[in-house]
Amino acid sequence: MERLIVDMDDVMADATGQFIDYYEREFGIRVDRESLNHQDEGHGFPDHQHIIKQFPHRPSFFRTMKRHENSYEVMRELNARYDLFIVSAAMEFPRSLSEKLEWLQEHFSFLTWKQIVFCGSKTVVHGDYMIDDMPYNLEKFNGEKFIFTAPHNLHHNHFTRLNNWNEVAVRFL
Amino acid sequence: MERLIVDMDDVMADATGQFIDYYEREFGIRVDRESLNHQDEGHGFPDHQHIIKQFPHRPSFFRTMKRHENSYEVMRELNARYDLFIVSAAMEFPRSLSEKLEWLQEHFSFLTWKQIVFCGSKTVVHGDYMIDDMPYNLEKFNGEKFIFTAPHNLHHNHFTRLNNWNEVAVRFL
Repeated sequence: MERLIVDMDDVMADATGQFIDYYEREFGIRVDRESLNHQDEGHGFPDHQHIIKQFPHRPSFFRTMKRHENSYEVMRELNARYDLFIVSAAMEFPRSLSEKLEWLQEHFSFLTWKQIVFCGSKTVVHGDYMIDDMPYNLEKFNGEKFIFTAPHNLHHNHFTRLNNWNEVAVRFL
Repeated sequence: MERLIVDMDDVMADATGQFIDYYEREFGIRVDRESLNHQDEGHGFPDHQHIIKQFPHRPSFFRTMKRHENSYEVMRELNARYDLFIVSAAMEFPRSLSEKLEWLQEHFSFLTWKQIVFCGSKTVVHGDYMIDDMPYNLEKFNGEKFIFTAPHNLHHNHFTRLNNWNEVAVRFL
């Protein structure tokens, strides 16, 4: 079985949507998702950059993210056809470790703990395919690389692009 | 730089000693470490097997382990000479995630979060060398394999054996 490595934030989980929701709750302004395009993560918001950086350290930030549309259905099929691993760079945010594990158990209950990897740097994992929203994660990967579209990576064109989970299904199923 | 992957339980941390301490606290019997030799992890204790299995689920079990003798000094030198990663199969015990991270920050404060990996299966990591006490972790590793001596692995002779951290230093420094 070929090994497929899938990222969590802004791939399985709508991290961008969570930043927008937290920003609105804190500052009363609903930022348009498209206004974040082509800007680094967290940099597209009009103000309060230093506070936005604190959002991932807050309780429930990772636990309450929404699932990306169709990710559940596609992942369930991928799980049957691939040696599937979830690899998330969670170590920077200690609180996220247990929250991400609980999130996966709730939203992707067909996955087992053996398929989950929380790391700092993804350079240590290897496989046949990697789907990630961060170019620096893909750059050092040994296998075939796919960038999952998020506002902060629209200007990157080094990797095969997958715009949504329907495109993941078309490519991998 | 060559990549060296090091395990936590019964390599950096004295997991066996923790089982012995918990057993004594619970049942009033101090089990001799040598009496555990050649038996699977947790199986060498005279009684209460079902309760021993619960120890790793208890608060503080992973947080309060002792460091293996000389591990700090040798790891600090290894850290300067190798692309060093700590890879621990922590995902089976959700509580261990934050406890292991805190333990590393306390006992090996020179390590950064980028060097830490918590996984279920270690098949997904690759490197040049792996030091681990569990044969099943070593078996599927792509690089050179070293078994770190623990009571439960004394009967294995498939891998180069390192009996203690002084032997790690001799081999790698």
